[in-house]
Amino acid sequence: MKIHHHLIRLTALSALILLPTLSSAQNVEPTPNGIKYPTGLTNWRVIGTSIRNDNNTQRVILGNSIAIKAARSNTEKKQWPDGTILAKLVWKNETLPTWQAATVPGDFVHAEIMVRDTKKYASTGGWGFARWKGLELSPHGKDKEDAQQPCFECHKAAESTGFVFTQPAKMP
Amino acid sequence: MKIHHHLIRLTALSALILLPTLSSAQNVEPTPNGIKYPTGLTNWRVIGTSIRNDNNTQRVILGNSIAIKAARSNTEKKQWPDGTILAKLVWKNETLPTWQAATVPGDFVHAEIMVRDTKKYASTGGWGFARWKGLELSPHGKDKEDAQQPCFECHKAAESTGFVFTQPAKMP
Repeated sequence: MKIHHHLIRLTALSALILLPTLSSAQNVEPTPNGIKYPTGLTNWRVIGTSIRNDNNTQRVILGNSIAIKAARSNTEKKQWPDGTILAKLVWKNETLPTWQAATVPGDFVHAEIMVRDTKKYASTGGWGFARWKGLELSPHGKDKEDAQQPCFECHKAAESTGFVFTQPAKMP
Repeated sequence: MKIHHHLIRLTALSALILLPTLSSAQNVEPTPNGIKYPTGLTNWRVIGTSIRNDNNTQRVILGNSIAIKAARSNTEKKQWPDGTILAKLVWKNETLPTWQAATVPGDFVHAEIMVRDTKKYASTGGWGFARWKGLELSPHGKDKEDAQQPCFECHKAAESTGFVFTQPAKMP
């Protein structure tokens, strides 16, 4: 009887732990280049932030555990090991009503990820690219080529930093 | 013997889990108004981002578990329960070398937190305020009054949103 109670408690506890992770991402369609939306992405830790003045957006850059370990190591030139996933949550800029000099996240634009697999994505700098648009996370790209290649074309500008624009922010 | 092995494994596992949390914050001095720097703050989940054009900074806003639960609930007007801690990591703006239209985190300015305790901080809107400057996290404020009151004076501008400037960003 006592064991039975413990089992029930354990099951309830597991459900509580899994719930926040499973809630949002379970019905998201993969992108045409076969990349799955990572479960629990919004619970990942922070690598940095950035603002794009050319399209009036701001974003937070998150990483899975492999990415965070690499981002927070003290090597000068970042090495992103296979298995790294870098993620961006992007919002339109909006003025904060209570402090007009502040620009804050308005509409959600998209979630984007870069998946590190040096073999699988050898032809695009070792990175797989994916984007899901809007709060409904609708996968971007007409086909496999369209989902991957235009991202890489733009990321060539960051070849000197391993095709990654994001440089981890300094953290205490 | 087998139990002994399991114990060693468990101990090693606990050490691995605790290690990233304990590494940075253990020697940080509390602020003069008695607020402690939260252990593992940089591992907290994201509530939003913001840019201040009046002082050329960008920041990520993080929250402890109580804050995240409140931030991600679907109530229109956020209620921050006692125990909530909101945190800001703030950086000076810098131009990204590989994409000149992007503004990214440069020097780390400070970490700030707001601690919700409606009784203890009744005279300052139910919030305790604290700031630690630079990567060395040196506590801000000459004395108890100086560490708390000027923050609250400024936050009065956000009285309509419970003295909190941050409104949680829309997330998928």
